[in-house]
Amino acid sequence: MQWYDSVVPEVGNSERSWGGASFLLAQVGAHAAARFKERIAELDLAAPQAGLLRMIAVTPGLSQQAYATRLGTPPSRFVTLVDGLEARGLVERRRGEPDRRLYALHLTEAGQQMMRRIGAVGRAHENALCEALNDTERAQLRDLLARIAEQQELTAGVHPGYRPRS
Amino acid sequence: MQWYDSVVPEVGNSERSWGGASFLLAQVGAHAAARFKERIAELDLAAPQAGLLRMIAVTPGLSQQAYATRLGTPPSRFVTLVDGLEARGLVERRRGEPDRRLYALHLTEAGQQMMRRIGAVGRAHENALCEALNDTERAQLRDLLARIAEQQELTAGVHPGYRPRS
Repeated sequence: MQWYDSVVPEVGNSERSWGGASFLLAQVGAHAAARFKERIAELDLAAPQAGLLRMIAVTPGLSQQAYATRLGTPPSRFVTLVDGLEARGLVERRRGEPDRRLYALHLTEAGQQMMRRIGAVGRAHENALCEALNDTERAQLRDLLARIAEQQELTAGVHPGYRPRS
Repeated sequence: MQWYDSVVPEVGNSERSWGGASFLLAQVGAHAAARFKERIAELDLAAPQAGLLRMIAVTPGLSQQAYATRLGTPPSRFVTLVDGLEARGLVERRRGEPDRRLYALHLTEAGQQMMRRIGAVGRAHENALCEALNDTERAQLRDLLARIAEQQELTAGVHPGYRPRS
């Protein structure tokens, strides 16, 4: 039974009071995103900036257009995002090979250092968020979520909240 | 190893490509919330309206202030939210007992019918979202998420995305 199955309250029905999997996912997910945003702000980064740095780190040297498409970010917003990271010396645009008309994106040395700091923040975040679970249970949770993500055809490593707004 | 542990890409590392539990939670959670919002819009409801109807259904007859506090909604926004539901005949304000200065909120007959329609939408949403999992795995996922929610001190049945904005 899910929370929405009944209008009559029943005390002590923990499934009712906490809701179904989809409600809990939305609730815990929003909490996870908000806490990550707070933590990453300590590095003077916005979540979309961290998301792009991560994507360049994992798959470097693609064209700006390729990253923008993957993130689902409109071109003009994407340029603003890259400009900010370039101005801070974290990312550089290089003429692409084989197509020299396109700029490929790479992390600078400072960008790689920043990724390591993001990594430390990410680990602290993961540990704090999953404190209630042991290692086996965390792996179980990751597996269940990854299967939902795959079946729902979500893009690996990209989530809507990381898309730059305005 | 989490996605943020390494800057060097490794093809075929599914944990890297999908990210840690916290990233997946944020990603799948945002997807769940967005899909629910779309589905519930078919009933001409906004997610915060559905959230309040549900809260009144589960715990009816509290004062407006009590619901507002639980939802974390500022009083003025809360009044607007209730006004909208009252205008549609889904909710009614009644003089409270024992304190007749306070208005208590109740679902009308139409409000209870709407809750049943929300229930049907919620079940369809849950089934579509969790299509990749069998019943045992869904229960497992609910249990893991509920433990995180409890340890993180989230309020049962309330999530930030359901709070009315503006």
